[in-house]
Amino acid sequence: MTTEQPPQSKTHRVVIVGAGFGGLECAHRLAGAPVSITLVDRRNHHLFQPLLYQVATASLATSEIAWPIRYLMRDRREVTTLFANVNGVNAQSKRVLLDDGDTLPYDTLILATGARHAYFGHDEWEPFAPGLKTLEDATTLRRRILVAFERAERETDPERREALLTFVIIGAGPTGVELAGTIADLAKDTLAPDFRNIDTRKARVVLIEAGPRVLAGFPDDLSAYAQASLESLGVEVRVGQPVTECSADGVVYGDNKLEARTIIWAAGVRASRAAEWLNAPADRAHRLEVLPDLTVPGHPDIFAIGDTVTIAGPDGRPVPGIAPAAKQQGRYAAATIKARLNGGTLPPFRYKHAGSLAQIGKRLAVIDFGRIKLRGTIAWWIWGIAHIYFLIGLRNRLSVALSWLWIHARDQRAARLITQGSSKVVR
Amino acid sequence: MTTEQPPQSKTHRVVIVGAGFGGLECAHRLAGAPVSITLVDRRNHHLFQPLLYQVATASLATSEIAWPIRYLMRDRREVTTLFANVNGVNAQSKRVLLDDGDTLPYDTLILATGARHAYFGHDEWEPFAPGLKTLEDATTLRRRILVAFERAERETDPERREALLTFVIIGAGPTGVELAGTIADLAKDTLAPDFRNIDTRKARVVLIEAGPRVLAGFPDDLSAYAQASLESLGVEVRVGQPVTECSADGVVYGDNKLEARTIIWAAGVRASRAAEWLNAPADRAHRLEVLPDLTVPGHPDIFAIGDTVTIAGPDGRPVPGIAPAAKQQGRYAAATIKARLNGGTLPPFRYKHAGSLAQIGKRLAVIDFGRIKLRGTIAWWIWGIAHIYFLIGLRNRLSVALSWLWIHARDQRAARLITQGSSKVVR
Repeated sequence: MTTEQPPQSKTHRVVIVGAGFGGLECAHRLAGAPVSITLVDRRNHHLFQPLLYQVATASLATSEIAWPIRYLMRDRREVTTLFANVNGVNAQSKRVLLDDGDTLPYDTLILATGARHAYFGHDEWEPFAPGLKTLEDATTLRRRILVAFERAERETDPERREALLTFVIIGAGPTGVELAGTIADLAKDTLAPDFRNIDTRKARVVLIEAGPRVLAGFPDDLSAYAQASLESLGVEVRVGQPVTECSADGVVYGDNKLEARTIIWAAGVRASRAAEWLNAPADRAHRLEVLPDLTVPGHPDIFAIGDTVTIAGPDGRPVPGIAPAAKQQGRYAAATIKARLNGGTLPPFRYKHAGSLAQIGKRLAVIDFGRIKLRGTIAWWIWGIAHIYFLIGLRNRLSVALSWLWIHARDQRAARLITQGSSKVVR
Repeated sequence: MTTEQPPQSKTHRVVIVGAGFGGLECAHRLAGAPVSITLVDRRNHHLFQPLLYQVATASLATSEIAWPIRYLMRDRREVTTLFANVNGVNAQSKRVLLDDGDTLPYDTLILATGARHAYFGHDEWEPFAPGLKTLEDATTLRRRILVAFERAERETDPERREALLTFVIIGAGPTGVELAGTIADLAKDTLAPDFRNIDTRKARVVLIEAGPRVLAGFPDDLSAYAQASLESLGVEVRVGQPVTECSADGVVYGDNKLEARTIIWAAGVRASRAAEWLNAPADRAHRLEVLPDLTVPGHPDIFAIGDTVTIAGPDGRPVPGIAPAAKQQGRYAAATIKARLNGGTLPPFRYKHAGSLAQIGKRLAVIDFGRIKLRGTIAWWIWGIAHIYFLIGLRNRLSVALSWLWIHARDQRAARLITQGSSKVVR
């Protein structure tokens, strides 16, 4: 049976750069539309970033929060998945440029290229204070944290031992808070029975924040609760203290110098190079300033979504860089493309804030649903169920549930592995 | 309550180098003996090597087959676990030398230092034909295999595309057979629906063996069955064909040149440097030639066990380099130490061969129990149950069972991740 097909050249070509939450949602929402889609990513996997800190703290395995992009698109014959590195856009000729010289022609382009951690003029801090954005970042942090305990176990000098057992997290947004709470749990519960020469429960976890409070995006009372909860886990919280120096020895903040062998950067991100590719207006963090329909000024055929853009929400504050915001934008871009193909338009993008969640250690969380605020164990249950719900596929849901069950019931963490790219041992 | 303790200096000190199957079993079997134990490994984890090929082929996650050594010894107060690199033994002063200058005094030393893959005078082949002994080896192979498919998807030149879709495994022992079968399954079932420009089912998997048959350690009829089964999976089996060249282009074997971008070495191992440390007699593969009580000639206080030794079994043939053999030797060494502490001795070590197993693709296996030989699906079930039984802990058993269920029911593999040490994309 053959049916009349429209000639290939007339199919509207959509290129989506980046298969994070925004790009993937856009691809999903274009199902059934008369378009051909090319989904490009320099990784072969979609990453569930909200749980990346759990890989860094040995709680989850890498494969529990990552899915091959190709696999997610396997039933969509009109979607071509490319494992490739984009390094530019030619908006005149309407082509995406790949670093191997290939180009991808588009009729509509979606830039969903995300963000990396940023050091705001202090890139020299990166080797001492690595950040957390990719699976490799997470396994690197995991290695550093676990190796610090191993080296402390063999260290005889008390000062060096204390520096090895001091963990500094810079930045007290959700990632910083979640890292600090989980490292405290790791030291207190998971590792304590396993060491002989050190008492891992005496490890110091120090959370340093330049602003006046932790979880600045949450209401004051939830911030205060989060800080008190962290302190009850043994985390030392230092707010209003900008870090002025990171080195192999430790950090300097305010008038304090803290010797620490492990420093983690959770203090800020900068957007991808998308604004440079288009020579388009961007804010200080390189986020593209998009129009109310999420297109780039002067380029109605280029949408930019997710962490790589800045746009005001209905309350006038910037839309936060979180997964639900990126997904809403991906959905809006897909709907706009469909409307345009039918000769229509859509009202401007309007962000709906569903809520903010952060886990504090293994049994507590805070949730801000706007009118409803939750905290404590009940919030943790909602946090846990929500995260399992948003994972993709039954297998990973079962697997993560299993991993969490073991953490809660046995204090065992699934992935206490020191690994690296080479076969050499890191010391 | 205080009880009289024997003075610390009189406790018999056992140092175990290597926490593989042999070293770990020895530590377990010394429980309750009046000894203090130091267990040294340059990894922080014990690895279940029999399933390592499943990590290399994206079927299992790294953490499903690895456990922190420290965690396995957590309830044994007399055991100190050290994450350190041994680089020598001073048998005169009875000390193990670490690469950071520290030394570990021993009364009895257990060398359970294992083996690495070996190229028999062709070390220059290693970059082109990596082997499989560590978790990093496995994630490196996984990356190479998955990247080959990704690059083939984008390759327009037919010859280069064919070379990218040709996978050569050198050596048809259990590891080679298991890799070949699993890569064939991966190409045929798991990946086929996900690619658009290539038909992954046309990937060539070529298993090359210098000897006259696959699975040389098994009886003739099971070898023949294994070869026929591999061929029915589409694997091209070439026996009696020594490889004479490995390069970035491919392999040369006999009079044949085969263009291939992915070559895997499963053709042989050499022992650790333990024989060099002691300047003790060893065979061609550097395996220590131990006495019938598993001690090193001239060193009654040094046992050597597992893949790093060679010793004849009751049938006169060498004891095979498999997990049950290493465990039996670890058990024997522990029993001998206990007997000696009581002033006794033990009869010489006697290897009991329980059986040989190998999986062929995802639904078949061969098992040689001596009098009973099994093959096909029933053998696969026994293979699967035995492997899950020998995993450590309920959590990993459930997790591996879940992963295998998904492979069988859905052809989904848990860990199709391209990752590496650096954050750069490999092409």
